[in-house]
Amino acid sequence: MTDPLFEYLCRLGDNTLVLGHRVSEWCGVAPVIEEDIALANTALDLIGQTQLWLGLAGEVEGKERDADALAFHRDAWDFRNVLLVEQPNGDFGQTMMRQFLFDSWHLLMLKGLMTSSHDQIAATAEKSVKEVTYHLERSQDTVIGLGDGTEESHNRMQAALDRLWPYAGEMFLSDDVDNAMVEQGLAPDTAALRPAFDAHLSDVLSEATLTRPEDDFTHKGGKNGVRHTEHLGHMLTQMQWLQRAYPDATW
Amino acid sequence: MTDPLFEYLCRLGDNTLVLGHRVSEWCGVAPVIEEDIALANTALDLIGQTQLWLGLAGEVEGKERDADALAFHRDAWDFRNVLLVEQPNGDFGQTMMRQFLFDSWHLLMLKGLMTSSHDQIAATAEKSVKEVTYHLERSQDTVIGLGDGTEESHNRMQAALDRLWPYAGEMFLSDDVDNAMVEQGLAPDTAALRPAFDAHLSDVLSEATLTRPEDDFTHKGGKNGVRHTEHLGHMLTQMQWLQRAYPDATW
Repeated sequence: MTDPLFEYLCRLGDNTLVLGHRVSEWCGVAPVIEEDIALANTALDLIGQTQLWLGLAGEVEGKERDADALAFHRDAWDFRNVLLVEQPNGDFGQTMMRQFLFDSWHLLMLKGLMTSSHDQIAATAEKSVKEVTYHLERSQDTVIGLGDGTEESHNRMQAALDRLWPYAGEMFLSDDVDNAMVEQGLAPDTAALRPAFDAHLSDVLSEATLTRPEDDFTHKGGKNGVRHTEHLGHMLTQMQWLQRAYPDATW
Repeated sequence: MTDPLFEYLCRLGDNTLVLGHRVSEWCGVAPVIEEDIALANTALDLIGQTQLWLGLAGEVEGKERDADALAFHRDAWDFRNVLLVEQPNGDFGQTMMRQFLFDSWHLLMLKGLMTSSHDQIAATAEKSVKEVTYHLERSQDTVIGLGDGTEESHNRMQAALDRLWPYAGEMFLSDDVDNAMVEQGLAPDTAALRPAFDAHLSDVLSEATLTRPEDDFTHKGGKNGVRHTEHLGHMLTQMQWLQRAYPDATW
């Protein structure tokens, strides 16, 4: 069986890697230049966090794989990100709704990880919290601004929420890997973060005049690697292209 | 300097490879099932022709590269297809307009190649002519049917023609490679095919109630590899994925 700590660190690192790459796809094509730069900065933050999580995962694994090897030389079935973050960008509203849902969970998770009994995990979480606090501030403000905006922007944000909601629940599902981490005091219980998430979501959606979908059905299979959506593989063809075509390439 | 014959065969094979891959992108998502199957068959024909052209190119080169090596292990700058065939599918109308423009040239070119002094070239051209005669019949009928169809379909076909026209002229540009082939009796002069192309185009567009754009400006740089459009590289990330990720993979 795979070491739960390695598995768990891959989950953290794959979330930030996949979302970071998705967000980077906006570079140069965002609707206004300020958003373009803000999205690029968000992507850079997430990729930076990936370096730390996957770097640590590689150390824990002890098979001489560094963050680059894990990011660029694993295939889709070895990725451990939640399905939410691999969903396509859609329009700007969908991108920001995906970001808001992830940021809301991410910030709670990182705050929990700050008290991890593992020093490097705690330190990485502390560094990341500062960045993610800002991510959430931005995504939340955008969800409110566009949700409570024009009829067009409101409809798009509601459509984005309806489209993405079936992927939100996976962030709160626990399995043996999560339980092993919780038992060792390494990480918070993700299921226990749900009430705080729901309360925050309720406040933001209310201000955004958006309606939370009634059905809480959730797709799953990303974080445990059982089944990713088709979108991940397509994304990897582009994200991994350089290292796949030129395996020994260096700067 | 590269052997003109190798270069020329790559041009022929890359045209059919890149267009074949583009057309295959419709597999499973075409508007009606009959079109879906017809497009898949067209793609298969083109990929089959690619095997012959690039296979011969590899033999001529004498560096132990077979058709697969040339198709999957060259990067964008080594591709020699005309820019027209790497343009994105767009809607169904744009795909069929691209196909019609290419087929019209392709059939004339293949008929000329049937009298090549090189036996294998002549034989491959003869085999291909049968397939491409059918491709042209189909694409031409579709251009007429949709051009002279509803207001919506007419407008889309005119938009497709306007979008693609600046890429049509490259098929008729000659350079030293073409000239070397013509001088050795290996291939027809592509520039000399233009009058027949124009006459045919005029008949079809007239029946399709479409207007040929006035400006004959043409983009170039694909067939000589000087500069491809950004679309080729993105296409290659997907087309070459398997061989790049698993270089020694076999069935």
